[in-house]
Amino acid sequence: MGNSFGHLFRITTWGESHGGGVGVVIDGCPPRLPLTEADIQPDLDRRRPGQSAIVTPRQEADRVEILSGTFKGKTLGTPISMWVKNEDARPEAYSEMATKYRPSHADYTYQAKFGIRNWQGGGRTSARETVGRVAAGAVAKKILREEFGVAILAYVAQVQRIAAHIDRESVTFKQIESNIVRCPDESAARKMIRLIEKMRRAGDSVGGLIECVARGVPPGWGEPVFDRLEADLGKAMLSLPASKGFEIGSGFAGTLLTGLAHNDAFRMKDGKVRTVTNNSGGVQGGISNGETIYCRVAFKPVATVMREQQTVDIHLKNTTLKGRGRHDPCVLPRAVPMVEAMAALVLVDHAMRQRGQCG
Amino acid sequence: MGNSFGHLFRITTWGESHGGGVGVVIDGCPPRLPLTEADIQPDLDRRRPGQSAIVTPRQEADRVEILSGTFKGKTLGTPISMWVKNEDARPEAYSEMATKYRPSHADYTYQAKFGIRNWQGGGRTSARETVGRVAAGAVAKKILREEFGVAILAYVAQVQRIAAHIDRESVTFKQIESNIVRCPDESAARKMIRLIEKMRRAGDSVGGLIECVARGVPPGWGEPVFDRLEADLGKAMLSLPASKGFEIGSGFAGTLLTGLAHNDAFRMKDGKVRTVTNNSGGVQGGISNGETIYCRVAFKPVATVMREQQTVDIHLKNTTLKGRGRHDPCVLPRAVPMVEAMAALVLVDHAMRQRGQCG
Amino acid sequence: MGNSFGHLFRITTWGESHGGGVGVVIDGCPPRLPLTEADIQPDLDRRRPGQSAIVTPRQEADRVEILSGTFKGKTLGTPISMWVKNEDARPEAYSEMATKYRPSHADYTYQAKFGIRNWQGGGRTSARETVGRVAAGAVAKKILREEFGVAILAYVAQVQRIAAHIDRESVTFKQIESNIVRCPDESAARKMIRLIEKMRRAGDSVGGLIECVARGVPPGWGEPVFDRLEADLGKAMLSLPASKGFEIGSGFAGTLLTGLAHNDAFRMKDGKVRTVTNNSGGVQGGISNGETIYCRVAFKPVATVMREQQTVDIHLKNTTLKGRGRHDPCVLPRAVPMVEAMAALVLVDHAMRQRGQCG
Amino acid sequence: MGNSFGHLFRITTWGESHGGGVGVVIDGCPPRLPLTEADIQPDLDRRRPGQSAIVTPRQEADRVEILSGTFKGKTLGTPISMWVKNEDARPEAYSEMATKYRPSHADYTYQAKFGIRNWQGGGRTSARETVGRVAAGAVAKKILREEFGVAILAYVAQVQRIAAHIDRESVTFKQIESNIVRCPDESAARKMIRLIEKMRRAGDSVGGLIECVARGVPPGWGEPVFDRLEADLGKAMLSLPASKGFEIGSGFAGTLLTGLAHNDAFRMKDGKVRTVTNNSGGVQGGISNGETIYCRVAFKPVATVMREQQTVDIHLKNTTLKGRGRHDPCVLPRAVPMVEAMAALVLVDHAMRQRGQCG
Repeated sequence: MGNSFGHLFRITTWGESHGGGVGVVIDGCPPRLPLTEADIQPDLDRRRPGQSAIVTPRQEADRVEILSGTFKGKTLGTPISMWVKNEDARPEAYSEMATKYRPSHADYTYQAKFGIRNWQGGGRTSARETVGRVAAGAVAKKILREEFGVAILAYVAQVQRIAAHIDRESVTFKQIESNIVRCPDESAARKMIRLIEKMRRAGDSVGGLIECVARGVPPGWGEPVFDRLEADLGKAMLSLPASKGFEIGSGFAGTLLTGLAHNDAFRMKDGKVRTVTNNSGGVQGGISNGETIYCRVAFKPVATVMREQQTVDIHLKNTTLKGRGRHDPCVLPRAVPMVEAMAALVLVDHAMRQRGQCG
Repeated sequence: MGNSFGHLFRITTWGESHGGGVGVVIDGCPPRLPLTEADIQPDLDRRRPGQSAIVTPRQEADRVEILSGTFKGKTLGTPISMWVKNEDARPEAYSEMATKYRPSHADYTYQAKFGIRNWQGGGRTSARETVGRVAAGAVAKKILREEFGVAILAYVAQVQRIAAHIDRESVTFKQIESNIVRCPDESAARKMIRLIEKMRRAGDSVGGLIECVARGVPPGWGEPVFDRLEADLGKAMLSLPASKGFEIGSGFAGTLLTGLAHNDAFRMKDGKVRTVTNNSGGVQGGISNGETIYCRVAFKPVATVMREQQTVDIHLKNTTLKGRGRHDPCVLPRAVPMVEAMAALVLVDHAMRQRGQCG
Repeated sequence: MGNSFGHLFRITTWGESHGGGVGVVIDGCPPRLPLTEADIQPDLDRRRPGQSAIVTPRQEADRVEILSGTFKGKTLGTPISMWVKNEDARPEAYSEMATKYRPSHADYTYQAKFGIRNWQGGGRTSARETVGRVAAGAVAKKILREEFGVAILAYVAQVQRIAAHIDRESVTFKQIESNIVRCPDESAARKMIRLIEKMRRAGDSVGGLIECVARGVPPGWGEPVFDRLEADLGKAMLSLPASKGFEIGSGFAGTLLTGLAHNDAFRMKDGKVRTVTNNSGGVQGGISNGETIYCRVAFKPVATVMREQQTVDIHLKNTTLKGRGRHDPCVLPRAVPMVEAMAALVLVDHAMRQRGQCG
Repeated sequence: MGNSFGHLFRITTWGESHGGGVGVVIDGCPPRLPLTEADIQPDLDRRRPGQSAIVTPRQEADRVEILSGTFKGKTLGTPISMWVKNEDARPEAYSEMATKYRPSHADYTYQAKFGIRNWQGGGRTSARETVGRVAAGAVAKKILREEFGVAILAYVAQVQRIAAHIDRESVTFKQIESNIVRCPDESAARKMIRLIEKMRRAGDSVGGLIECVARGVPPGWGEPVFDRLEADLGKAMLSLPASKGFEIGSGFAGTLLTGLAHNDAFRMKDGKVRTVTNNSGGVQGGISNGETIYCRVAFKPVATVMREQQTVDIHLKNTTLKGRGRHDPCVLPRAVPMVEAMAALVLVDHAMRQRGQCG
């Protein structure tokens, strides 16, 4: 269970890192949207291993194929099935994982839950699972852009203690993609890259923050009570591998202000109700207020390190395990399209729900 | 939409702050659980206004009534409907809200979404909506305690910059309830109370952090991919009024460590697979690992302040608004049972899902 | 579980025949719809016991109260909670039911499922549970009528072997309500009433068929594959107490025709695509085609008869049981508003889903 | 939307008759179940075109491939993705369908709903869509058989007016599969085959009834109110292409009896609560009572006939259309595994829900 997300625009992902492949089914996509593999592949290329010197060198082309739901280049309104074949299957590389639980991975918890696990490359727990999300997210982003005029951008805002300075109202996709760490602050980006390279040499890893902005969301998206925009965005982001925290608007820092300082005063501007500040992050009472929505996701340093660590084996004996082979010292550059995808999935679903209930 | 939460243990809340009342329907409660109003009322008393000198003086008895789903003091397995009648209805106190949008409240966004709103006391956006959650949470906590041996506790961990020091493995309910701010660190609690009293005098407000722990969760609860425990906990907490952030385990601070320092080594202890540290917060790959689950929720300072603020009115004119009447300078003490309730709702649902799929 | 119905217009019912009351929460109702109790009560009056000489004499006023979701006579878009207090509680009348399972009732199966049951008047298995559906259905019918121009009518089409002749394109609400059996064929109605009166005297019961028509549904409502209109209508009707069968369009009789005779030829008429015949019942491939939708529901004779029957008791001993007290010899007249309600709930949900996905 | 079915054992199907292929994702399958393609293929072979002289001669091997969710021949508890590649793609055979709506097909309604359609072979409206259901149903049947001791069988009970006589308590799979029409009454089967052959020669088609039995279901499966077993079975069956009616137990014929004759008396037998008759069809109040569950599905004669019919074209002009090419004069033999699959999907889901809620 738990492999579906969304209500009206609903995706179901499937696949293990080693097996036939990974994929996704989108149910509820609006009809008549122009859509081909060329709309999907660029985001998969931003997600894939081996794309730059600072990510895992595992080589996968990750060619997406649309199997259903389109006709002559347009969506039909029926389920869109997309998949990527697995290629780089080297089960022998993982033989130690068959008997030892990797620290801070999900090997042990999957075994405890299901009484069985695919230990090759992490199986379903592998970040490879996110291929389906990114593919579906590309569709969601296109709908948001073309039908609703909403733009979604994500970027690396901090690597360990190196924080970037970014104007979220003006940052562009081009700026983000201008360097391999996907941080639009060039000076910070250079430091981040150096830190990641250092971590690779040390066989260690680092985490950090990704910030995501959605510009152009009209007032009125989001639901009262449980399905607030920030609740659904939070769930979406916290379902990403290695994420440990989420905040919207002023977030944790906002707890240091008093109410008077934190409140966003309303003022009319160009005939529209606007707020003077945006501590709310574009969401009030769970519903968008027309300002830019922004949130941040905390990613822990990835658990795979090239160093010996204490662990236990499947026979419940203490032992040690040393990571070997491919090493991804920082997941953040590849997580950027994942964060965008999850934000887009939440927003397109709420756009359709709003249309469904309120016409 | 969006007023239901959970899959197998599913609640639906209803009600506005001014209207007939507020309530909840629980669908899927296991049968034969002893249950009367006496199991519910204590948590509602911890949630209600007027309970102490540092919360809103609004007086509401909040007497819960069980309307269905029990028979001779036991649950039937059928829907449990509970409600609390509204009493303190003074619509005249809110007449200014009929025409002016309160800053950082949901008045404007509800109007934008629905084209109509109940402006009396915030209507559905009022924190009064959480009565239903707390009532359902009391049932969930009882099931977790009696059927699964799981204990859930929440407490105030920080008010603005005043941070408490608390041992999450040993903290008790009695310690938490020993003072009106619900912080089990007595020294910090005193400072917190003084700060909140100062804020009341200033007509201002403060926010902070609530930490929640779940002890006794067996390995194996939680689902891969979208319904990870931390994702569902995050959604649950971020659906609470005034929440702006969520973190599990090491959370945001964990991004400052390297992987080697952050990883939780496995060691056998008393015949069980245990981790030496618990940066994971009891959850790995979205599934419980048997360690104590802990998470923190950031609450912004409440938006109602007794000071004049800039805003706009329903005629789209700039104006000002000054809060008057009852003033809740800090929502944290009353939010503690809400946080417990949301954690319990997530965990009992996953316990039942695990039983349903894996037997 | 299983006490909710619908996706975008979603209802959750609660309540036992003996307990605080019975009710329903509607989540997802469009905002700004004029709505008061006066819109709901007439359908509850058509459903209630004691309304005529041919139904159960149990006396219940069934006064509905709206507890939330409206403001100054209009819907808010938030959950609408409605309930009816239980009045006629005479648990002593049911003492024999505490120890004996009534044949063809749900006493035994509830006990088997939950290990506990409310034996007073059938508890949750009582037809009293349908109060919530009928109340929600009244709202759904109003939305369909006022927002979408769709009219829903149901009527008794057959009692045992007495079949009515009715033109489903022209039949009116007034004709249906012109007699106590709710059959718009006056001649058949008289025979039906006589048969039901005879059954009452014999302490026995009869069943029959209710037909439901929906006029004015535009082409395009309904979903491919699992959520076809006929599938959702079938589920809706088969969830009503005592229903045993469902057919749409030509239904079972259609299996006696060949394809050539059964197919509905298309012809243009007044600029619209129309079918010459309507064996499809207004639905093709699960989606409405603009013709009148019609279906029939088979209701078994009600299980409560005033005669001695063989059964077993809770101690697993063979015994006998004789129905006593109030006797409802034919459920059909009271089931008419239930059938309308279920049809309306299905259609309004699909109307909103269509709007949500396809704009 | 509408391409998913089930709650705990949830399937999502995808695919058009002409496109990459058709498939299904199962989410929630219990772990550790032995499963390979050899468990699935036999049911697909029973479903596929070209299997005998009385079904459509379209030739498709329909080789199923499991892409995820198993490891070394056992289920992992993660999503099981299965698909069948499309082979027999001859779009030119369907060129007339690009401009003309086939009578009693879904061409027009899909166009009305989505504003676009895949006119090649019916696209998503093709019965080819059921490949995914049958594949998932094979898994569900295996779980029911091996984990719960439940056997599901379906067979052709009537073709047009030719009715079979079958003892539903003793009928075997072998008897059903002993002839190409899948009717275990040999004498009736011969007449049915002759009728179908006659229809083929006439370019016409016939419908009929399929009966389905589930033996070994314990008391207690099914939910009160909306998710009654008969409601979910009804929805499942009415979602099958060409189905127009559903009945459980005595069904429509039961409306001709009085309550006294229709009621199923309880008697103890071998220490178990049993019913003397089984008019209830194994379900009372929506919940299984331990007797054999049986239901019947009415299938209309298939709409594709090799004769000229009146219709309209996409330019809204009256015209005629003559079916050509492959002709399936009776869908019933191939629909038998579809009916089994849908019954199994409903029952396994309820088995898991019962386990989840009641332990």
